Amino acid sequence: MKIYDRPGFPNPARIRIVLAAKGLDHAVQFESVDLIGAEHKGAAFLAKNPSGVLPLLELDDGTLIAESTAITEYLDNLDGNPILTGKTPKEKGLIHMMQRRAESELLDAVGIYFHHATPGLGEALQQFKSPGWAHRKEWGERERDKAIRGMHYFDDVLRSQPFIAGENFSMADITVFAGLAFADAAGIPIDEELTALRQWRVKVSELPAVKQRSGQNFEADDLRRMGF
Amino acid sequence: MKIYDRPGFPNPARIRIVLAAKGLDHAVQFESVDLIGAEHKGAAFLAKNPSGVLPLLELDDGTLIAESTAITEYLDNLDGNPILTGKTPKEKGLIHMMQRRAESELLDAVGIYFHHATPGLGEALQQFKSPGWAHRKEWGERERDKAIRGMHYFDDVLRSQPFIAGENFSMADITVFAGLAFADAAGIPIDEELTALRQWRVKVSELPAVKQRSGQNFEADDLRRMGF
Repeated sequence: MKIYDRPGFPNPARIRIVLAAKGLDHAVQFESVDLIGAEHKGAAFLAKNPSGVLPLLELDDGTLIAESTAITEYLDNLDGNPILTGKTPKEKGLIHMMQRRAESELLDAVGIYFHHATPGLGEALQQFKSPGWAHRKEWGERERDKAIRGMHYFDDVLRSQPFIAGENFSMADITVFAGLAFADAAGIPIDEELTALRQWRVKVSELPAVKQRSGQNFEADDLRRMGF
Repeated sequence: MKIYDRPGFPNPARIRIVLAAKGLDHAVQFESVDLIGAEHKGAAFLAKNPSGVLPLLELDDGTLIAESTAITEYLDNLDGNPILTGKTPKEKGLIHMMQRRAESELLDAVGIYFHHATPGLGEALQQFKSPGWAHRKEWGERERDKAIRGMHYFDDVLRSQPFIAGENFSMADITVFAGLAFADAAGIPIDEELTALRQWRVKVSELPAVKQRSGQNFEADDLRRMGF
């Protein structure tokens, strides 16, 4: 199978952690997509994923699976031992709930801030984000504030349980972890008082699957090109 | 188990279809939440679901599961026969992909239009949607256009396969179905030319699980209160 992605970006990083956690790193070929040049918004890529987002999984039979949660469901269930998406109905429910909150309250909110209230990834890509819309900075700033509230929420969660969805590391932790990496890159700090969230982040960063994967953070080159 | 919801609204309708499809209608108690009076934004409900959205599932052991996809994962896996969320890794991947697209390209886009570019559900609730933000109508109208593009996309999908995620009815169909009901209520028409989408909608509305459930559409009383 093949993964179209761009190492160092938040959603690609999620799937690279999944691959490492499942021992599937060597079962995939990676094809790099020029995200900064907006290759994923061009006709060739849109034919594969009409939503125009990375990462994208292509199976050997040509089946295309987009969306990080969907790719994670596929990869996690291949060996019949879904350690990341839950084994029991209750685990599945709680993991999907917390993963969705991690997207809407943190990762996606940071993304909206980054693409609408900062220079984002530069001109080639930004034209696809909100053409002709004068008030996007205000929207982006509202979402930054939402992301900060999201950090406080997850800190609170982690005061009573070791991982985002309960006792075990899961897909929900991966999404929060990617959300915090994106927040770093976008210049949204984690408040000092969020000690549970900070300690969890250190613990997660030391897990073998998270340590092993390539492309954890934005690359220095990308950051420079983005004007940070 | 108990479901907190409000019959007739889009996300509650999704879970009512799931319950009917799984034969679980009689296994749950429903507790109605005053959505129009913004009861789900008050402290008592936020203590149960910090995201302040319906529906919410409460298990007999007190576990709380929010987010429609998460509740669906729980209910669909209870009998070990996940007909709505997929049995094989590939089915799971494709269903989760299409369900996510159904949210972002249709259901959520309609919701943003409805709550930001129309009078929405009235004053009690609207204050929680975008306080003090002057440009929300423009944002709402952009999302309406996105929803219309979404309808075209799903029409295209349905020209080559009988259901949204492939050969079988799934969670992804439920989300698109709820999205179209919400579009009706919000006053976004389905273009005449979208014949595959229209035919699929008739076919889905006649499925026993969809016919049986209560509260399919916005109720006449709600619509009147909302000024339609």
